[in-house]
Amino acid sequence: MKPIIAPSILAADFANLQSEIELLNQSAGEWIHCDIMDGRFVPNISFGLPVLEAVHKHARKPLDVHLMIAEPHLYIEQFQKAGATNITVHYEVCPHLHRVIEQIKSAGCKAGVALNPHTPVGLLEDIITDLDLVLIMSVNPGFGGQKFIPHTYAKVAALRELIQAKKAHALIQVDGGVNTETAPLLVEQGANVLVAGSFVFQAADPLQTILHLHNLASY
Amino acid sequence: MKPIIAPSILAADFANLQSEIELLNQSAGEWIHCDIMDGRFVPNISFGLPVLEAVHKHARKPLDVHLMIAEPHLYIEQFQKAGATNITVHYEVCPHLHRVIEQIKSAGCKAGVALNPHTPVGLLEDIITDLDLVLIMSVNPGFGGQKFIPHTYAKVAALRELIQAKKAHALIQVDGGVNTETAPLLVEQGANVLVAGSFVFQAADPLQTILHLHNLASY
Amino acid sequence: MKPIIAPSILAADFANLQSEIELLNQSAGEWIHCDIMDGRFVPNISFGLPVLEAVHKHARKPLDVHLMIAEPHLYIEQFQKAGATNITVHYEVCPHLHRVIEQIKSAGCKAGVALNPHTPVGLLEDIITDLDLVLIMSVNPGFGGQKFIPHTYAKVAALRELIQAKKAHALIQVDGGVNTETAPLLVEQGANVLVAGSFVFQAADPLQTILHLHNLASY
Amino acid sequence: MKPIIAPSILAADFANLQSEIELLNQSAGEWIHCDIMDGRFVPNISFGLPVLEAVHKHARKPLDVHLMIAEPHLYIEQFQKAGATNITVHYEVCPHLHRVIEQIKSAGCKAGVALNPHTPVGLLEDIITDLDLVLIMSVNPGFGGQKFIPHTYAKVAALRELIQAKKAHALIQVDGGVNTETAPLLVEQGANVLVAGSFVFQAADPLQTILHLHNLASY
Amino acid sequence: MKPIIAPSILAADFANLQSEIELLNQSAGEWIHCDIMDGRFVPNISFGLPVLEAVHKHARKPLDVHLMIAEPHLYIEQFQKAGATNITVHYEVCPHLHRVIEQIKSAGCKAGVALNPHTPVGLLEDIITDLDLVLIMSVNPGFGGQKFIPHTYAKVAALRELIQAKKAHALIQVDGGVNTETAPLLVEQGANVLVAGSFVFQAADPLQTILHLHNLASY
Amino acid sequence: MKPIIAPSILAADFANLQSEIELLNQSAGEWIHCDIMDGRFVPNISFGLPVLEAVHKHARKPLDVHLMIAEPHLYIEQFQKAGATNITVHYEVCPHLHRVIEQIKSAGCKAGVALNPHTPVGLLEDIITDLDLVLIMSVNPGFGGQKFIPHTYAKVAALRELIQAKKAHALIQVDGGVNTETAPLLVEQGANVLVAGSFVFQAADPLQTILHLHNLASY
Repeated sequence: MKPIIAPSILAADFANLQSEIELLNQSAGEWIHCDIMDGRFVPNISFGLPVLEAVHKHARKPLDVHLMIAEPHLYIEQFQKAGATNITVHYEVCPHLHRVIEQIKSAGCKAGVALNPHTPVGLLEDIITDLDLVLIMSVNPGFGGQKFIPHTYAKVAALRELIQAKKAHALIQVDGGVNTETAPLLVEQGANVLVAGSFVFQAADPLQTILHLHNLASY
Repeated sequence: MKPIIAPSILAADFANLQSEIELLNQSAGEWIHCDIMDGRFVPNISFGLPVLEAVHKHARKPLDVHLMIAEPHLYIEQFQKAGATNITVHYEVCPHLHRVIEQIKSAGCKAGVALNPHTPVGLLEDIITDLDLVLIMSVNPGFGGQKFIPHTYAKVAALRELIQAKKAHALIQVDGGVNTETAPLLVEQGANVLVAGSFVFQAADPLQTILHLHNLASY
Repeated sequence: MKPIIAPSILAADFANLQSEIELLNQSAGEWIHCDIMDGRFVPNISFGLPVLEAVHKHARKPLDVHLMIAEPHLYIEQFQKAGATNITVHYEVCPHLHRVIEQIKSAGCKAGVALNPHTPVGLLEDIITDLDLVLIMSVNPGFGGQKFIPHTYAKVAALRELIQAKKAHALIQVDGGVNTETAPLLVEQGANVLVAGSFVFQAADPLQTILHLHNLASY
Repeated sequence: MKPIIAPSILAADFANLQSEIELLNQSAGEWIHCDIMDGRFVPNISFGLPVLEAVHKHARKPLDVHLMIAEPHLYIEQFQKAGATNITVHYEVCPHLHRVIEQIKSAGCKAGVALNPHTPVGLLEDIITDLDLVLIMSVNPGFGGQKFIPHTYAKVAALRELIQAKKAHALIQVDGGVNTETAPLLVEQGANVLVAGSFVFQAADPLQTILHLHNLASY
Repeated sequence: MKPIIAPSILAADFANLQSEIELLNQSAGEWIHCDIMDGRFVPNISFGLPVLEAVHKHARKPLDVHLMIAEPHLYIEQFQKAGATNITVHYEVCPHLHRVIEQIKSAGCKAGVALNPHTPVGLLEDIITDLDLVLIMSVNPGFGGQKFIPHTYAKVAALRELIQAKKAHALIQVDGGVNTETAPLLVEQGANVLVAGSFVFQAADPLQTILHLHNLASY
Repeated sequence: MKPIIAPSILAADFANLQSEIELLNQSAGEWIHCDIMDGRFVPNISFGLPVLEAVHKHARKPLDVHLMIAEPHLYIEQFQKAGATNITVHYEVCPHLHRVIEQIKSAGCKAGVALNPHTPVGLLEDIITDLDLVLIMSVNPGFGGQKFIPHTYAKVAALRELIQAKKAHALIQVDGGVNTETAPLLVEQGANVLVAGSFVFQAADPLQTILHLHNLASY
């Protein structure tokens, strides 16, 4: 099994997104991960709709949009129009999680739920069969370049178990501190999609790094 | 008197900001206007800190940052570090406006206050002498390309009067629907700084358009 | 000049709205006033969309909808669809008042702004020419049957002056404690529309009371 | 065991509530379900205190009040005074759930907790013995006439198990998409109370429909 | 005319409030000023109900309570019960200012409104005749020991004018940076009540300082 | 095993904190518990930074600070500077619980999480190994002197089990209604730290009461 690699443009050069996207188009990375931050749910404002539109214009791969925003239901349709393929919302800000998931699907996107490091996977037991993706945060959301939280391995395993028990089809995605050391262990526990930001874009050879990550993590 | 032209990168090509910024570096535009939107104060998420940093890396002109965000006091220092020269906050979201203005100045930036179309200039009478800039919105904030609200002319004139009455030094900035028709009339009423977005970047020749705007509006 | 009388169904029998509406259809009251309360902006939850739809089904007069709700921009289109002719929002909760007014008009309704007892009319100076209606609260919003605040007379006069100075066309509406004593004085100061709730519905003869109010206040 | 049928007046004719209530008085429905929506917790404003008072004046059955509102603790006493017999609040908006339950009981009402479709019953393990009622939402709250979520059957069964394990006495109520097809299966899993709205009020013969539902679901 | 001096216990020794209060009981200060901060409206949490009760037990002078809190209407009765004589709320957080003022008076207290440094006195024109007190902040609220904002002199004068024009009876209070230099100038402009914190409690002889302030500022 | 006794100064005499603290310095109580309430998360405002500083000046024991506040991440550093040794935040208000715990530790304090009576301990399964302390509320937070909730015994036992299963080191603290009757049973279930407020300070002999509690609960 080979994991999907989803390089995050949060670590790309925002002054030259076209060439960064073209590099990703040629890479072994299947998805392009986009971290939307609103300065309210997380202590950072990253980028939003007009930047996503610019990315979409050049990308030839699915845009995997992670909404780190406080009231995601107000923006689902706009992000779909701006080019999102997948839309992932945070468990911690969705009192009506089932409705938001339906809303994402009605907009024609794949639907994901992200869990902050302290949020247990068991909370998804009544929604897991409705999901295309669960994003396990292995760092606290808000910034790139943070240190991987080791408890993530056990969390991926627990989620894998829940998915099997419920006969669900959701992919398991991990975001934060993914590198050649953590990637194989994550895949071993059951991760299907690995987000990598600074590890890819700060590498001497991003294309090789993505490929390496891709192969290393497979088994 | 020649107005300062502040092209807004909200209308630029976000896939190629470096070349857009280089164009602005060569233009007659004195400032580079940056519209930060958080999806909470305004119904759009535009761009934030990492994009501003990328702009700053290439800009050789002051970055004029307009914070269309709900709790600006939480982000002043971060925007200064990301490269802001001027920071403008909205009257409508600052119960402690005097403190935020002090905070912006303590961070080493010029301080501005933006007024939504319905907010009267008279509300600034106790703070006007502390300001470097007042931004009169001539459209509702949140999106580029909207239609100019004609009442703005009278509002600029009223602000000019307040500034003179209070012996204040604040520049008068106008944002929204600025073009060759509205610009001269705005300057005539007392505007000092004109923001222009789609009018510049969607023009056949942005450099000429900026220059034209610059000269046309002068007297 | 004869004022428009707008009986408020907040004081009607909610168990028999159809017959209450039919009574109003036959009355001298030109509009039917509907007080929508959300329990957030005001300390009461009154009624909303499904009740308005029921009223609309039977009413043969314009529905004058007063939104005492916290984020009115989220509900404009829904209230229009439910039958609103006029939609009035509160100054105190609209940081983007100009946009909401545009939104109401785009939905095909007449647009009004309500002012709480302490909110000065001068704050409307940049928006008054865009309005169809200004609602001066002569009691605190949230409940029927409260005592009229005498300062309202002066406020109506001040608004009349502002409207004339700005050559605006907005109607002046007053809501709270309107009766045979206050009505003539309000009209004298310039009020065009009088809302009456318990004074009408708790009267022995509501039809006569509306007519009486209508005639008494005219001059 | 026969389930309690609680017809919801959200689907009744709001122009003629008295006759609708009188019909319910004569029906096999034991409770009258009242859906209070504030436009904040759910994207709809339904009805509130004055409408409930009107219902109460005519009802000869317990009023089962479901508060789909954001800060229910601010309104418990008012809803009790307006006629509520049962008051149910949402798990998702109660950081102090135990206190609100105590507050409902102190007001002399039966206390319930509602769970949105994604909220697992396990979250009630420390409060279940304090509850008179658990309301499992089988559609997303906010509107009538939605499609039943099949996962509800398993959720009712899980709640039944929790109640037995904790020796609790709470009734299990289900709301959303209840009809002759879903009702028997819900009761089979352990549901005690079935809310039915449009299925009842849009039926040719509401009285027969309630009775049919009542009998069909019993075993 | 002699101004009322209201020493603020924010600058007192919180480990020995009884003796601090006894000192104030013997002083020329007529009122005891209490700064309540909630960490939400202002960036500090100072003290609240149980501390006020302790102060009240020993104070033989009116407790002048300044609520720097976000939803003051939720706490009026509790602060009255805890011993408040005067209750002052902030203009910036009261969309229903008239109702809160009525609520304070109904609780048996004198009612005041505080204005942040940037808030113009003209905003009080429709409420001024209902007030017992207007508190002009001459520093930004939240901390003791800040520098006096010179614009305050003009603001006191403007408020004095408004009060006379409206034949209102409200006292003018100033809080922040009051000392022997600023006090006489403030009284000259029309201030009636001076709050002093660190200037009093950090003085070698607080009693003499209060007296000095009291006499110095009189004329 | 002897439990740590943490007397809460919420029940102390706030007019004479120095002597109260000196009494605690001499007592068998190992920690001094400080209940910070903001009037937003809980319906009471107790005391904050300046009072804590005063306590810290005299205390010779660790200050165990329980933040019953809504956005604790905004105040961690300030409470550490004011003298906190331990900082405990509420699960119910921390969407980024892992980040806040890291922030507390980075500030050099011990980190705790408090659970309201209805919040199950299972929600801590992904964070328990990062914690120094878990505070189980055995009454609803906001006031002293409330009645102990018996379900707490089972909750302490469940937490003890979780801690052992995860090989975590967190201490188990209980707050609310602790007395000679409840204390031994709590320790028996696994509690390590007992907070006691009015039971200690309203006792005839607080020192003896603390000692008694200390010994009684040991085994």
